[in-house]
Amino acid sequence: MEKKFQNREENEQFNLSNDGSICGYDSLHLLLKDNLKPHHFQEVNRLLTGLNCGKALETIALPQSATALSTEHGFDLQAFCFHADKEVLREPRVVRVGLIQNSIALPTTAHFVDQKKAIFEKVRPIIDSAGSSGVNILCLQEMWMMPLGVWTRDKKWCEFAEPVDGESTKFLQSFAVKYNMVIISPILERDLNHGEVIWNTAVVIGNHGNIIGIHRKNHIPRIGEMNESTFYMEGNTGHPVFETAFGKIAINICFGRHHPLNSLIFGLNGAEIIFNPTATIGELTEAMWPIEQRNAAIANSYYFASINRVGTETFPGPVTSTDFNFYGSSYISAPDASCTPCLSHHRDGLLVTDMDLNLCRQYKDKWGFRMTARYELYAETLARYLKPEFEPQVIRDPLLH
Amino acid sequence: MEKKFQNREENEQFNLSNDGSICGYDSLHLLLKDNLKPHHFQEVNRLLTGLNCGKALETIALPQSATALSTEHGFDLQAFCFHADKEVLREPRVVRVGLIQNSIALPTTAHFVDQKKAIFEKVRPIIDSAGSSGVNILCLQEMWMMPLGVWTRDKKWCEFAEPVDGESTKFLQSFAVKYNMVIISPILERDLNHGEVIWNTAVVIGNHGNIIGIHRKNHIPRIGEMNESTFYMEGNTGHPVFETAFGKIAINICFGRHHPLNSLIFGLNGAEIIFNPTATIGELTEAMWPIEQRNAAIANSYYFASINRVGTETFPGPVTSTDFNFYGSSYISAPDASCTPCLSHHRDGLLVTDMDLNLCRQYKDKWGFRMTARYELYAETLARYLKPEFEPQVIRDPLLH
Repeated sequence: MEKKFQNREENEQFNLSNDGSICGYDSLHLLLKDNLKPHHFQEVNRLLTGLNCGKALETIALPQSATALSTEHGFDLQAFCFHADKEVLREPRVVRVGLIQNSIALPTTAHFVDQKKAIFEKVRPIIDSAGSSGVNILCLQEMWMMPLGVWTRDKKWCEFAEPVDGESTKFLQSFAVKYNMVIISPILERDLNHGEVIWNTAVVIGNHGNIIGIHRKNHIPRIGEMNESTFYMEGNTGHPVFETAFGKIAINICFGRHHPLNSLIFGLNGAEIIFNPTATIGELTEAMWPIEQRNAAIANSYYFASINRVGTETFPGPVTSTDFNFYGSSYISAPDASCTPCLSHHRDGLLVTDMDLNLCRQYKDKWGFRMTARYELYAETLARYLKPEFEPQVIRDPLLH
Repeated sequence: MEKKFQNREENEQFNLSNDGSICGYDSLHLLLKDNLKPHHFQEVNRLLTGLNCGKALETIALPQSATALSTEHGFDLQAFCFHADKEVLREPRVVRVGLIQNSIALPTTAHFVDQKKAIFEKVRPIIDSAGSSGVNILCLQEMWMMPLGVWTRDKKWCEFAEPVDGESTKFLQSFAVKYNMVIISPILERDLNHGEVIWNTAVVIGNHGNIIGIHRKNHIPRIGEMNESTFYMEGNTGHPVFETAFGKIAINICFGRHHPLNSLIFGLNGAEIIFNPTATIGELTEAMWPIEQRNAAIANSYYFASINRVGTETFPGPVTSTDFNFYGSSYISAPDASCTPCLSHHRDGLLVTDMDLNLCRQYKDKWGFRMTARYELYAETLARYLKPEFEPQVIRDPLLH
């Protein structure tokens, strides 16, 4: 069955996009690059992806051990570099970040044990490629260890849930030690110490294999076929920033990217890189995908790294009324409004990106968004808004009937 | 001198973009449309501008009286239509909105009286074109009645400031009555009743020519060559929503678009259209321009209409160290993440857009961003953040040295 899935993916890559649009292509970036004259592409690319510190974004060369895995296992591998200005008093603080996007490995009707094991085996060479590339902080996609069963109306998918120190964490801890790598593992969590409730959780594993802490998804959608609000509630872990060996990071899980206040507080707590593991589909969000994450990076002067799964997930039976076509397109936004191109719409992929964290403070100083933010005005207005007797500030034209 | 300015604009339009990039074009939209195969353009356009309610954005035909003025005076004229789904209990609420972008009319060294008069004469046919097009709500650009002298270090530009009921307001009131049109007039204001201080203000003129009220710019930049924070302070008018004959509107002036909280409160006060009169230049913000406004429209389920001036403004002498090259590109974003193409980078222009305001509530219901926003969490967190003793929520890896 895995072979069949791979064949379908290869077919889609060149002929049909996931959403049934009329022309096949691997990413918007390549579609433009392959079809525009070079000087037109250069200008379009300048407008669409910004310019990192006034220059086109550089690609970086990865070791042959990393690229060989990409060739052998057929996943997209791209690598870029964000620069910052040189400072007099601080050395550059360059961190190498990796993002993994992937489809599931077996049909959703296979035995649960086999499904999870097959996903582990599918991501193993991608993690090895990240490790060989010298990635410092690696993030997997939302609920990477299972299909998106939480969008159906069938609670059997709760069986995939694990405690924070469960088998997915143990699987990744060995890689964290082997490659001296911080790994963010977004899972479906069962909280054994609090009545066995379910959470949507990211586990942060330190570069020595230790569990630094967790963050639970702050905002849960109530939308269309996405039934996940019946599986778990809004997170109770606040907006933690994890101080790791390679920088201060935070995790804004999926739907949280639609909430500018969520993104704001991670920034006020000191995060310099936000990881945004996501599962989202074309009809819903593809037009938003290049907007919200870049806005968060700009407004909060930090890097924002978004991951979306790929492939189609089918849930036979009456538990859902549609297939889910995930569009991948993982990418990273920088505080200077530049961004990397997206990974493939269709294929598994690893995005490796060097980022100088000094760019964050440089843009805080340049733009002064925090200094000019008038938080006292908004804290007061929000507190007033919350009261049932709140009356909006409306000035009515007295000449209206 | 006016003729010379026009010639330079025409030259730039076809050969050189304002920012010195290598290929000339009128807008990103046309650059892509003219250089991609139709089926590629269709897909690129789908990804870049979204799809309004699942369909490509429609253009609308304007009366010959409106288009003739565009031909005669050489300004860009484009017209589009955002649709909403039909509802059972509400009729469609279609409003026709107009945005005007323009360059100044005389060099900044001309007599102040002549400069202002020349701008009035330059925008007159554009306003007439809007009136002939049946525009219901018209917005002009930030400080439309003067050059951007507030970016220099010379306080002589304060002479352009007017009271709320000054000559610019009087000039526009006659058009409001003639065309039954609400007009938003962003000016440099002198507050005669409060010590003659200066504000950056938008005057809202009702469709009977009455002044409904004002809004003063909430967030003032402290950036590079933009010295405006030495000319006026942060606004003291809150986040008013103006209930006009054609809908509930608010004005988010220029730098306020970088502040998601500013955009949020206008939404919580009930605005369905935000007008964002702006003056901004390529090196600073062109990569942000397609991002922040669309994000505001998405996050707050309202329309967001942005205007930026065009042309180069030169201020001879030691008062500033650079010319300012404004890049136009006025456009409108919708709550469904779609947007219009931008007006020209270089030329004066009028953007006419029909929008069904029912789309706002439809997207509030579809996405539920307000329902899932957890404002109580953020009101509390912001209040805590404001205290000097605030400590960020940081979880430190205990294995760090």
